[in-house]
Amino acid sequence: METIRVRTKRISDMVNITGQVRELIAKSGIAEGIAVVFVPHTTAGVTINENADPDVVTDILMKLDKIVMEDREYRHFEGNSSAHIKALMTGSSVTVILSGGKAVLGTWQGIYLCEYDGPRDRKVHVKIIKAVDKSDLK
Amino acid sequence: METIRVRTKRISDMVNITGQVRELIAKSGIAEGIAVVFVPHTTAGVTINENADPDVVTDILMKLDKIVMEDREYRHFEGNSSAHIKALMTGSSVTVILSGGKAVLGTWQGIYLCEYDGPRDRKVHVKIIKAVDKSDLK
Amino acid sequence: METIRVRTKRISDMVNITGQVRELIAKSGIAEGIAVVFVPHTTAGVTINENADPDVVTDILMKLDKIVMEDREYRHFEGNSSAHIKALMTGSSVTVILSGGKAVLGTWQGIYLCEYDGPRDRKVHVKIIKAVDKSDLK
Repeated sequence: METIRVRTKRISDMVNITGQVRELIAKSGIAEGIAVVFVPHTTAGVTINENADPDVVTDILMKLDKIVMEDREYRHFEGNSSAHIKALMTGSSVTVILSGGKAVLGTWQGIYLCEYDGPRDRKVHVKIIKAVDKSDLK
Repeated sequence: METIRVRTKRISDMVNITGQVRELIAKSGIAEGIAVVFVPHTTAGVTINENADPDVVTDILMKLDKIVMEDREYRHFEGNSSAHIKALMTGSSVTVILSGGKAVLGTWQGIYLCEYDGPRDRKVHVKIIKAVDKSDLK
Repeated sequence: METIRVRTKRISDMVNITGQVRELIAKSGIAEGIAVVFVPHTTAGVTINENADPDVVTDILMKLDKIVMEDREYRHFEGNSSAHIKALMTGSSVTVILSGGKAVLGTWQGIYLCEYDGPRDRKVHVKIIKAVDKSDLK
């Protein structure tokens, strides 16, 4: 398992970590398999979304804020329940397919750490699993 | 890695791809493991939901539309920010367990490509990972 | 594949199953790999979120209710479309990394079965995949 460290800069932020994930895949030497990208936090998540126009990220974060906006009924003493709900909607991991030694991502896809209660120092764990075939086995 | 091709028919659409995924699993000859079903797009997703009453799909797509509805504050020039947010909520992959050579799905579960900015030609990648046990290894 | 059985107690409920997942990981004897935790239901899901203050769970379930609240336009005859939409937002599986024989979870992370149409008896399937490296292979 390898770990990427990310410093987020705002309360809500999406940080493109595609390059770092691709480096770990290259370093592993594994050609066929999957990479699991996992966030060990409960007010952050990880997703795959557009890597071109930065307005997409702005729009996503703006709308998520409206959807889970602050609510008088929230009871959690830390006051960040909306961040926990965004984390549920986003998910704590993405799984990427490796083929020919590379992550198979669409042209417009980037992997993002989603920060919902920042700014903070965050970790992202990456585990690469080799797809074993008959020729590998006894 | 195998690729399924799907032609979606509406702006918002859910296309049941369970049969095609099951065929790829059968073809792989792998009995125990997992199948990762991945969508290489940023305005589509993949999910598992009810395969019986088609009104479930209609209701899901109707309600997602209301939740992320058009917003004056959206800035992305392509005008499809709502589709990107639905993609985040849905996720870009599902992971299915294989046991006895088959996908372990509940009675009412089907695997769906979720189109949020169609109609379009979409791809779905499938990677099957064998669960290796001690008897397989040297 | 192993199966955990969970009895949910309310219409909406989140049941912490981290201990049972950890037991299955220990029992497997697999040190490095991933565990896929999968719910074979369409009105339930599985997520990872805060394990400390129970108000977080209360706030999540309260807000999800508001977001997908009952709608005159819902057509599904069973009347549980909101549960299906929550299931889509939550996801049907989580993937956890194993390292040194243990699930790598953050301090505040717990694995939860999310019930959206209970109370019911629910199943959670767990499949553990060993990460094979060169020393394992011929």
